[in-house]
Amino acid sequence: MPALATLYEPVAADLEKVCRLFDDELFSDLPFVNALCARVRQYRGKMLRPALLLLSAKACGKLTDEHLTLAAVVEMVHMATLVHDDVLDDADVRRKRTTINRMEGNEAAILLGDYLISHAFHLCSALDSQYASQLIGATTNTVCEGELQQVHRRGDDNLTVDDYLDIISAKTAALTGACCRLGAHYAGASARAVDGLERYGLSVGIAFQITDDVLDIVGTEERMGKTLGRDLEKHKLTLPVIHCLREAPAELQRSLRAHLAAPRPQRQELARYLQATDSIGYALRAARGHVQTAVAALAVLPLSDARETLECMAQMILEREN
Amino acid sequence: MPALATLYEPVAADLEKVCRLFDDELFSDLPFVNALCARVRQYRGKMLRPALLLLSAKACGKLTDEHLTLAAVVEMVHMATLVHDDVLDDADVRRKRTTINRMEGNEAAILLGDYLISHAFHLCSALDSQYASQLIGATTNTVCEGELQQVHRRGDDNLTVDDYLDIISAKTAALTGACCRLGAHYAGASARAVDGLERYGLSVGIAFQITDDVLDIVGTEERMGKTLGRDLEKHKLTLPVIHCLREAPAELQRSLRAHLAAPRPQRQELARYLQATDSIGYALRAARGHVQTAVAALAVLPLSDARETLECMAQMILEREN
Repeated sequence: MPALATLYEPVAADLEKVCRLFDDELFSDLPFVNALCARVRQYRGKMLRPALLLLSAKACGKLTDEHLTLAAVVEMVHMATLVHDDVLDDADVRRKRTTINRMEGNEAAILLGDYLISHAFHLCSALDSQYASQLIGATTNTVCEGELQQVHRRGDDNLTVDDYLDIISAKTAALTGACCRLGAHYAGASARAVDGLERYGLSVGIAFQITDDVLDIVGTEERMGKTLGRDLEKHKLTLPVIHCLREAPAELQRSLRAHLAAPRPQRQELARYLQATDSIGYALRAARGHVQTAVAALAVLPLSDARETLECMAQMILEREN
Repeated sequence: MPALATLYEPVAADLEKVCRLFDDELFSDLPFVNALCARVRQYRGKMLRPALLLLSAKACGKLTDEHLTLAAVVEMVHMATLVHDDVLDDADVRRKRTTINRMEGNEAAILLGDYLISHAFHLCSALDSQYASQLIGATTNTVCEGELQQVHRRGDDNLTVDDYLDIISAKTAALTGACCRLGAHYAGASARAVDGLERYGLSVGIAFQITDDVLDIVGTEERMGKTLGRDLEKHKLTLPVIHCLREAPAELQRSLRAHLAAPRPQRQELARYLQATDSIGYALRAARGHVQTAVAALAVLPLSDARETLECMAQMILEREN
């Protein structure tokens, strides 16, 4: 399985341009605002969302300047959610660096997230048509609903698999789906191809979030470069836990519920419960199912290098260690 | 001096329509999200920003559906900043009601603010042209910079009058200026009238914020319907304090600096310092100057009921008790 850097090779130069658009948009006359944005740049990771957008464009036709702008927009939306998520999760570390909230306080982090989302919409409004502004607006509406639902259902151990899938579809997959739709639409793809790519993006987002939640339990902090176990500490039920609560014998269930309700539940101890019901295995098989759905959705496209890369990206989600 | 309700009479029916657009846009399939939005509605106060937009339109020509949509957009932006401000200020009460952060926690309040700003941009993207999306995006960029600057300079007793004016121009006046510009632009006004109304809106915003900051020191919590003294507690220097630090004799200055740096400075005690230098009087005279600038900017418009109402609204800022 090739590394992401190899996979991104066909759009590497374009991603560089996206980074420049990102930086130019955020530039401020206030030096301390630029210093905050410089920190945000350091959290830049896989650039999964811009890559999905650009590769979707290439798989459907030609890459344009509009695609580059939109790739910067979706990365900015994503960064805004990361900065606010770190406040919500009271996280200390992101990409091996101290989070904005820990370093500059919650107030600066809340306002910096607002600054990022505002600039995302501002950059988007520079395009000729309202298509992208409407789609991004509808998508961020959904993302916020997903996040609100997650906070609302925290500590609720009656959360079902369907509830969980609703939440991650909204908070994570809506944006990856929108990335692929935008890439295809602005490449002039047919409605069938645009819809197919959106389905691919949605399934990739779901699979990505499931593996993210698995790694929050069984990943290593050093590889992930961020504080782990926060879902458990914040009493957010994720797929392995929901499965274990459903499948475990009554006594184990009772004991797990008590453990989840403890003030500081430990992820190492949780992992032992999950072993009894192979719940990590269950979650990874679910992720595999969504990867297969994603790959199948690509069948609407002609064969191309870009389509093959999108397929590999979906498969790679199952090999994630960070 | 007539009450605001009387002043708004010419646009009262239109403001009702704006409220409906506001509610429709925020409607969610998730009942608890609607419950949060119902609370936000209760914080709705003077509707100053929608009124400025609609009256600017009437002063320049005809009110259109676009104006109603934009009035809902600017109110949504304003509500988003209130909800996040209450998190930043750790405020307990807003419009005589418990704040979202105090009732539902900081996490729900941060996400609800995000939900409001996302819906504001989404609603704005329904208009035909990108003009408003661009202006609103540029304005919220500025608002965030102003808020970031305010947090950054907290506790800095070297803040000058110019620094203070920069901050409030960005965090408050940029939006009221944009309201008036949008009202005029979408009524087909001349560039001169559009610019004049924006100047009016900027000056009104500055005067409004100065009186807001004065009331945070000398207002009554019952009349204001919110927690007062938060600027002091959060070590935000406002115009009366900056003036007093500049004008007071050396010994009084030293004593005031020590008081400001105390863990829980009291606004009643602060008021005594300000009396020695007539600093409340200074701030109110400054507000009066900005009201005069606002009224003078209206001279580009032909005489009309709407223009007269805008003039009265500016004058009324000086009579505020809430």
